[in-house]
Amino acid sequence: MKSFMTTLRNAWAAHDSLVCVGLDPEIERFPKRIAAEPSPIFQFNKAIIDATHDLVCAYKPQFAHYAAYEAEDQLERTIEYVHRAYPAVPVILDAKRGDIGSTAERYAIEAFERYGADAVTVNPYLGTDALEPFLRHADRGVIVLCRTSNRGGADLQDLTVGGRRLFQVVAQLAAQRWNANGNCLLVVGATYPQELAEVRAIVGDMPLLVPGVGAQGADVAQAVRAGRDAQGTGLIISSSRAILYASAQDDFAQAARTATQALRAEVNSSRSAPR
Amino acid sequence: MKSFMTTLRNAWAAHDSLVCVGLDPEIERFPKRIAAEPSPIFQFNKAIIDATHDLVCAYKPQFAHYAAYEAEDQLERTIEYVHRAYPAVPVILDAKRGDIGSTAERYAIEAFERYGADAVTVNPYLGTDALEPFLRHADRGVIVLCRTSNRGGADLQDLTVGGRRLFQVVAQLAAQRWNANGNCLLVVGATYPQELAEVRAIVGDMPLLVPGVGAQGADVAQAVRAGRDAQGTGLIISSSRAILYASAQDDFAQAARTATQALRAEVNSSRSAPR
Repeated sequence: MKSFMTTLRNAWAAHDSLVCVGLDPEIERFPKRIAAEPSPIFQFNKAIIDATHDLVCAYKPQFAHYAAYEAEDQLERTIEYVHRAYPAVPVILDAKRGDIGSTAERYAIEAFERYGADAVTVNPYLGTDALEPFLRHADRGVIVLCRTSNRGGADLQDLTVGGRRLFQVVAQLAAQRWNANGNCLLVVGATYPQELAEVRAIVGDMPLLVPGVGAQGADVAQAVRAGRDAQGTGLIISSSRAILYASAQDDFAQAARTATQALRAEVNSSRSAPR
Repeated sequence: MKSFMTTLRNAWAAHDSLVCVGLDPEIERFPKRIAAEPSPIFQFNKAIIDATHDLVCAYKPQFAHYAAYEAEDQLERTIEYVHRAYPAVPVILDAKRGDIGSTAERYAIEAFERYGADAVTVNPYLGTDALEPFLRHADRGVIVLCRTSNRGGADLQDLTVGGRRLFQVVAQLAAQRWNANGNCLLVVGATYPQELAEVRAIVGDMPLLVPGVGAQGADVAQAVRAGRDAQGTGLIISSSRAILYASAQDDFAQAARTATQALRAEVNSSRSAPR
């Protein structure tokens, strides 16, 4: 199996896309026909995946949306389906895990063995020894929260620490300490383009996972110009609700495809645009 | 149903105990007879709970230890069993969740509705709006990571922010902003007694969840003297491995009772000792 980083870079190129579809199921928003089926979440995801796989660089199921429905089995099936049907597209498990070393080892087993995720999101608050059980899996991606897309992210992340802000300290730790295996990435919200540019200046060509476009309302062009690397790439632009629920009717998968195409085009038009 | 805070305070008094048993199953360490049963995790937990319920102020199952075994059902059964058999003892789901508001709402559903936990641990890195979906459940406890018990906790938590360290900022936010419903608590490791005393000075009588005794090696007496409130209480002293695996033989439940009694006595002897 290829490493997450290799699969990601190949998908960026092969699909000419920095777009990641977030698989955040909300059964109340599914078309009635799907909601009534057995395993509705898996069926919904499968339809979305079949309709978008050639347009994306990754899929990102968000753990809470499965756990709240007691649907771990459908999360497993979703990831397994992507691997089997579309092995060129890596899967990021968005779980934001963070615990002391011996427990983090259990979370790494959960993400990488049980669910077979190619990458996982993690929280840096517990420090280096809490990240190592993930980072030592050199073939998997470890995506550390840096500057999150929500307003409250500022409460801690924007605090000034020795002339820098906390999220900049996290970016420096990622670049200097956590990336020994070349498998560390960061989360920076599209809603904060200035911070995105500051992180990019610290981390070189480290890929950034960028949530916040679509339902959260960030300006796509601004985020891409601020966050792209020197080659006009290096981003995983994630959108969930605006793609998944583009239509609430039976044409939801086609509507998701259209929304994904539109986002890909919008992103691509800014990849080489002047700042 | 009584609130978490009320149940906790009643359990402190009724059982004369600040001890919390962490339910962190490791099937490889179970006695062979239990490991061979169907639902071994639930059977193990049930035996531990039956043997210790009158000696503790809380139970704390750690989520990762269930997720790594695909054993969410046994986690559900464990919590349900405590509620049914020993309603005087609250259950803390140690999951360290942290995500933006709309997703945090799903995690709150997972913890409080699906699992029926009386309290949950959460991560403060995403700020106030990520904690609110938990905090608004006034009858449940929300236990925010402050200074964790691991060495790497220092990487971010000890950074100096305007003359204070980050964990002190978190303690101030907890005391001043997050405790409007009187249901906010903090995690501070027993391994850092000086920090425990500093947090106590900031938060008044807010209860603190204190991991790090037992297998992690903290000095119990030092931690209790540093962390207790003005009434000689206010602590949830959590031990997992040193209690659960006190014996690997068929007498494991009795050995767990003996270890819990010893820890309770050790804690209690320091509750009114001079600093």
